[in-house]
Amino acid sequence: MSTQGQTITCKAAVCWEKGSQLSVEEIQVEPPKAGEVRIQILYTGICHTDDYTRSGKDPEGIFPVILGHEGGGIVESIGEGVTSVQVGDHVIPLYTAECRECKFCVSGKTNLCSKVRETQGRGVMPDGTSRFKCKGQTIAHFMGTSTFSQYTVVAEVSVVRIAPKAPLDKICLLGCGIPTAYGAVHKLSGIKGSTAAVFGVGAIGLGVINTLVQDGASRIIAVDVNQGKQAWATKFGATDFVNPTQLDGKRIQDHIISMTDGGVDFSFDCTGNVQVMRAALEACHKGWGVCTIIGVAAAGEEISTRPFQLVTGRTWRGTAFGGIKGRTELPSMVEDYLAGKLKVDDYITHHRALADINKGFDDMHSGECIRCVVDMA
Amino acid sequence: MSTQGQTITCKAAVCWEKGSQLSVEEIQVEPPKAGEVRIQILYTGICHTDDYTRSGKDPEGIFPVILGHEGGGIVESIGEGVTSVQVGDHVIPLYTAECRECKFCVSGKTNLCSKVRETQGRGVMPDGTSRFKCKGQTIAHFMGTSTFSQYTVVAEVSVVRIAPKAPLDKICLLGCGIPTAYGAVHKLSGIKGSTAAVFGVGAIGLGVINTLVQDGASRIIAVDVNQGKQAWATKFGATDFVNPTQLDGKRIQDHIISMTDGGVDFSFDCTGNVQVMRAALEACHKGWGVCTIIGVAAAGEEISTRPFQLVTGRTWRGTAFGGIKGRTELPSMVEDYLAGKLKVDDYITHHRALADINKGFDDMHSGECIRCVVDMA
Repeated sequence: MSTQGQTITCKAAVCWEKGSQLSVEEIQVEPPKAGEVRIQILYTGICHTDDYTRSGKDPEGIFPVILGHEGGGIVESIGEGVTSVQVGDHVIPLYTAECRECKFCVSGKTNLCSKVRETQGRGVMPDGTSRFKCKGQTIAHFMGTSTFSQYTVVAEVSVVRIAPKAPLDKICLLGCGIPTAYGAVHKLSGIKGSTAAVFGVGAIGLGVINTLVQDGASRIIAVDVNQGKQAWATKFGATDFVNPTQLDGKRIQDHIISMTDGGVDFSFDCTGNVQVMRAALEACHKGWGVCTIIGVAAAGEEISTRPFQLVTGRTWRGTAFGGIKGRTELPSMVEDYLAGKLKVDDYITHHRALADINKGFDDMHSGECIRCVVDMA
Repeated sequence: MSTQGQTITCKAAVCWEKGSQLSVEEIQVEPPKAGEVRIQILYTGICHTDDYTRSGKDPEGIFPVILGHEGGGIVESIGEGVTSVQVGDHVIPLYTAECRECKFCVSGKTNLCSKVRETQGRGVMPDGTSRFKCKGQTIAHFMGTSTFSQYTVVAEVSVVRIAPKAPLDKICLLGCGIPTAYGAVHKLSGIKGSTAAVFGVGAIGLGVINTLVQDGASRIIAVDVNQGKQAWATKFGATDFVNPTQLDGKRIQDHIISMTDGGVDFSFDCTGNVQVMRAALEACHKGWGVCTIIGVAAAGEEISTRPFQLVTGRTWRGTAFGGIKGRTELPSMVEDYLAGKLKVDDYITHHRALADINKGFDDMHSGECIRCVVDMA
């Protein structure tokens, strides 16, 4: 019996209030309205941003909510007017939408589509309402994706069809971590033959290292306070590993400057720590060093440096979702994966069932986990 | 009688100690050593950086010293091995040297030559000694130029020959302010058709406005707390003028964002004030706005912002001497001036004799002065 046009009852991990664990509940998912797509989520990664909102540290967090933004699934039904995906398509939900019509999309300069930004930030669909209910209560959407549910509803501009032969339990990581890291490096010019420092060796840091290798960087210095990450960094192609806690009080930026005769050509913050963001900038070479901030800092935190750092030729920039336009660029990234050109499987260290999703959060904090993928079945 | 090879006695404005007024003294200027050039300075501008060091706020200031870094003059004699200039050449001393051999010069990415940087910072010539004496005391050089003297000695890498028909009383401004402003804009791509905000309407700000006009910016918002600068900004081509003190407490960045539907494509700090540097960044458009810091902040001051500003696609950068390579690029700028393509005369509002150089500093602080040129004769 088709579920199209019907409210679906399924399981989802609900976060009832800030700071609480997730609770696997039976929920109701309304059918997609015009311009919306309902997706059966098969797999989802767990990312630090999910935990940031779960923890309550995000002042813009809305509760109760269904978190999750790194998923893979199959289109179950489409609303009126939807043309870019069809029932049965394998898809990745996109927290960075791509409408191809707004000022941002048509600028050719950024991936930060504004089409659904305001409602997405309020935890609702573009019409201002939610598709989720649990125990009679309305549950908020999260990042326009809410992949911690067996079924979710997203705007058509927030979903991309990918090759059906790509395994969803792997390429769900293209929902966040991998494009974020890939784009942050690949969209820069001048990587070939350059030196780089990568701060933070998690999934993003490893993705940055891997892309630096592919794009021909000559020296890649990985930095992490967890010595256990050295093996990971090396496996992905870092040429050096520095643990800032083992420098006898010398600042990491000064250490990198002395290692590299003046600093690196490119640095990347993959930590979200504002002190590390400063160190990453100041580890850059005078005259041309470019520091890219990828990590997301906690609300209210600020970065600082002496302006002399910029006046003497360093550039401080950042990216969100690696500057990747999801609907345009993810299909070819999936093809690259299928052709063996893009690492994905290597990031996945842990697997959990939906019933154990809280253990997946524990995995993430264990220091041994790169990515935990949750089987939503 | 030739003065070549002889110590010259001439007049110079000496700053004996931090915070003191300049004192016009008779000084002795030794002949140039190998690789050095002695220049008769005919005219010099007064720039805020001179006053910053004079005031004692610069912790790296060395005293007694002969300040000045925006001069024009004629080569009086050359040391052994000097080939790029000859006696009688009209020249501009360069505080940003260009050796064409160091890592920085050959990088093709920056104008920050390292050849004489260390000794220049210590107030001496590359051999570690000074060429200036006054009343038996050694007097320090300043920025490798010391243009507040009727004769100065500079390294060959710190001087450029320019067309002799260019009036030195005007094109001395190519020693600092004009290239700084010109390069900060002209070396960016994408100015044509763009919107821009220029914070601070002094010589640098006006130079930025002028270059924005020449490079085809569609809207140029000048910002200054001195309402008297509105006429200047308009004269140079600004389309809008905003006085941040007249916004009823609204922040200048928010005002510019609302004026421009999201912020400007480019912003420029020409103030050296770190709060203004922040406002300049935050007045940039999400997704692509680029903020360039030109002003020099006081020692120890820091810039801050939320990293979200960068993660959402703004870029924070800076330039020194506009990224201009003096020996390579100034001659053609002088030609542009002679061809009527580069404004120079319009910046000069005040003239002083060397004996009245302290009045030139007063002029600079009066709010009515754009540039004061000192006649060194």
